Parts: sequence; structure tokens; C-alpha cells
Amino acid sequence: MIGLGAIGGSLAWQARLAGVERVTGFSPEPSEGIQALKASAITELADTPAKAVQGAELVVLAAPLRPTIDLITRLASVLGPAALLTDVCSVKVSVVKQAEAAGIGDRFAGAHPLAGTHESGFAAARPDRLRGCVVYICEGSTPAGHRAADRVASFWERTLDASPIRISAENHDRQLAWTSHLPQAVAYALARSLAEHGQPGVSYGSGARDTTRLAASNPDMWVDILLHNEPAVGEALTRTESQIGELRRLIANGDAAGLRTYLTEAQSFRRGIDR
Amino acid sequence: MIGLGAIGGSLAWQARLAGVERVTGFSPEPSEGIQALKASAITELADTPAKAVQGAELVVLAAPLRPTIDLITRLASVLGPAALLTDVCSVKVSVVKQAEAAGIGDRFAGAHPLAGTHESGFAAARPDRLRGCVVYICEGSTPAGHRAADRVASFWERTLDASPIRISAENHDRQLAWTSHLPQAVAYALARSLAEHGQPGVSYGSGARDTTRLAASNPDMWVDILLHNEPAVGEALTRTESQIGELRRLIANGDAAGLRTYLTEAQSFRRGIDR
Repeated sequence: MIGLGAIGGSLAWQARLAGVERVTGFSPEPSEGIQALKASAITELADTPAKAVQGAELVVLAAPLRPTIDLITRLASVLGPAALLTDVCSVKVSVVKQAEAAGIGDRFAGAHPLAGTHESGFAAARPDRLRGCVVYICEGSTPAGHRAADRVASFWERTLDASPIRISAENHDRQLAWTSHLPQAVAYALARSLAEHGQPGVSYGSGARDTTRLAASNPDMWVDILLHNEPAVGEALTRTESQIGELRRLIANGDAAGLRTYLTEAQSFRRGIDR
Repeated sequence: MIGLGAIGGSLAWQARLAGVERVTGFSPEPSEGIQALKASAITELADTPAKAVQGAELVVLAAPLRPTIDLITRLASVLGPAALLTDVCSVKVSVVKQAEAAGIGDRFAGAHPLAGTHESGFAAARPDRLRGCVVYICEGSTPAGHRAADRVASFWERTLDASPIRISAENHDRQLAWTSHLPQAVAYALARSLAEHGQPGVSYGSGARDTTRLAASNPDMWVDILLHNEPAVGEALTRTESQIGELRRLIANGDAAGLRTYLTEAQSFRRGIDR
């Protein structure tokens, strides 16, 4: 397990509780590794990624996008011939391409669990964070890549009790631009708007806090995701600018009937996505 | 108590638990009134607003904006000379003006508790929903209006254990355009964007659900609020369109440094508003 934060720490912990005997962990933050060890989320702590993957059957990169891409190249040469490599990033085309370029497309399948949190570090790890979550599994283009994806999907389903969905990396990234990256970007834009134009010292209710909650996330992680999923994210943002413009005009024109239709469509969509 | 929904029902219930002996309720939905009576949130149920306010010391209008404005005019003539009238709407200029126009500016002060929820009806009432909340108290322009505001603030503080903040109706509405109405409008716009352009049947994670949660709110209530707080809401929406445009350009230009600065400013603001 490379990375022992909210996702990696939870994944290791849950795998241990599900009976995986040996989980070797690495974290760039030594204190996170020690916390994971103390919690018995891992059984051994390695001081480099290369040492952590020695003899591993399954290697999970639970790092942000840029280090994940770097690690794929660095670990390709030390990965055992039967070992399987996977990751948990929320952008998948760049990651799958990198594995193929590094010559390990047959031993790689990407995963993206819908279990994100704006918190970070092992302190945000939970032994049930991934239980029941949807996890996208994105395979390479070869038959071997397909078999690798079978094995990764099976690990998520059987060991972690999650619900795998097989999807191409391209479709995944297009879909996530709307379902995840757009809400994230809008939360950042709304928070920045409030930061620049709101009055200091005023009270924000639960509505403003919920709507901007995602803006508390790690900027470094999101710089990489947003840049790697351009132009799909750009397209989604353009459409949302138009939607805000339409709403603004309905209000400015005092168009109560048009405004009611607009808000009702939004409400109907929102009620439909509640689990 | 005129209106026994999430706010009115909670307010009545909490007042009863705090020792208010008699609370007469009215709801346009008879079933809500019966639920409130069964829960002992009210002691009597009236079948018209006019009957409910007979002999009352304090009348609370816990209705959406448009019915609140209508009720102020309708109840002005039946309100006892020593009775105090207040409301809970999240727009205050229109309400305070209406009370003054109805000749009861000396017996009226508006209140706006920051305790909203996208749920509605007495089913969403809680005997502790208002405890500890910030509540804005907006008074009329006369000395008598000032005394009315003293009494309403004291009711919120002593009986409901809330934290009153005295503010002019104009400042309240300008401030709420940013802190509440803008997040609400953005949640609607994002939900409508996803409704029109997202793919059907895809999975939305907790991020998308949180960011659009407010869009599940009652459209009728928000049509009135957004129209009554134009042009302040329009100004806030214009600024937010610009913020989204700026974000989109940083992504399109691959400007990692500029994007990091933007996201970090948003993050810093968001972390600052957590209680």
C-alpha cells in the first residue's frame, strides 16, 4: 500500500480486517505510517516504495495523481512478474496510458472508488470507508489488461465489499468531469467568490457550508485532476456559467413562472440522486 | 404560531418545552396541525390564522415569504394592541416595509434564524433545531419598533436559547444575498446543469450530493426569496459567473501555478468558516 491517507489507510485497514495476512505500507509522511501500524491497518512499514512492493501480489498506489503517475514508471521495473498494480485516482486516462507506456499494461488496472473526503491523512482513514462504495475499474486495451481488471474488480468486490463498475478510462473521465470534477470546481468558485466579495465576520449557515464543503480539499490534488481532465472539465464549466447566467436573467426579469420551472427542474434532479 | 413546518413546528415545540404554557397553532395543511398537536408542540389548533392570533401575546409567522407578506396585512386589524408580531423569512426589507405599511411597525420586528433545512413540513420539526442558532433581528425605524425588536430578541435568546444579532433589514438582505441566497442559487444552477448535460443512471458521490443539496428545497419558497432580493442576488451571481470563468481559463491555459493560488484562496476561506 503506497500512501496511507484517507483512502489508502482505509483500504489497508479494511483488507486486514477482511483477513489479508500481510499488508506492507509506505507513506511519504513517516508519522502516517506509524499511525497505520499502531492501528494494525498495516503489518509492516517500508521506508521506500520500492521496498514496500517487494514480493507483493497486489500493489495499490493510493497517492494523488502526479505521484501516482511517477510511481508507475518508477515501480514498473521492480514489480514482480505476477504482481498486479492498481491505483485510486479520480482521473483514469493519464494513469492507464502511463502504465501502458511503462510496459506494464498487462499487469495494471486502474480503480476509482467514490469514497472521497475533503479530509486527508491517516487520521481520516476508517475501516469501513470503502464498504459498499461504487468503484470504477478501468482496464487497458489488451486481453491481459482485461484479466488484470478482472482481478482488481474481484479484490474490491470480495475483500472490500464494494461495487465495481467496469468502464473505459475515456468514458470514466468524461463522466467524472460532470459528476465529480464539476461540483468540486463550482465549490471552489463559490468559495472564492465569497472570499473576495463577502463581508468578513458574517455567519454562514449549513447551506453555505455544505455547498462549499469540497473547497476545503487539498488544492495540489485538485490542480492535477482539473488539468488532466481538460477539456471535459472546461466544457462542464462553460455549461454551468450559462446556467447561472440564465438563472440571473430570470431573476432580473422578475420572471416568476420561468424561475419556478427552472428551480423545479433542479429540485427534481436533486431528489432523484439521493440514495 | 402560524405555520407548523420545519421552523414553525420546531419553534412551537421548543417554546413549549421551555415552559410556554399555551401555544395556539395554525397550519394550511390540517395534517401538519394534527401532528404538531400529537407531539405536544402546540396546545391548541385553530382553523384560521385570525382565530389563532386571538388573545396572543406573541404571534410568529412561520410561513414562506409571500404568505407572510399577505398575513401581515390580514392580521394587522385583529392583532391585540399589546401583541407583538414577528416572522422567520430569510428576506427582511419587504417584510418590515409591509408591517409599516399595515400600520403595525410599532408592534413588529422581523427575525431570521439561520436554521434552515431543505426538508419541509412538521416531519422536519425538531425540538432542538433552533437551539444555539444565530438569529437576525430586524427592526422598524421608529423607537416603538426598536422596543418591539428588544422583546423579539429577548424571546429568541431566553426562550429558545438562540443568539440574536440586531441588524437593519437592508444590511441583512445585502449580507444574506451572499451568505445564503447565492449558495442556494448556485446549488440550483449546478443541479440544473447536471440534469441537462449529465448522463442518466450515473453514480453521484457525496461531493456532488452535498454541493447540490440545497437544490432539493421548495421552489415556491425560493422563487419569492430570489425575486425579493434582486438586485443583490443578481450582483452576487454575476460575480460568481466571473469566478467560474476565471477558473475555466486557468484550466484551459494549463496554468498550474495560477490554479493552485486560486484553489488555495478558496480552501483558506472555506476552512475559516467551519464552526
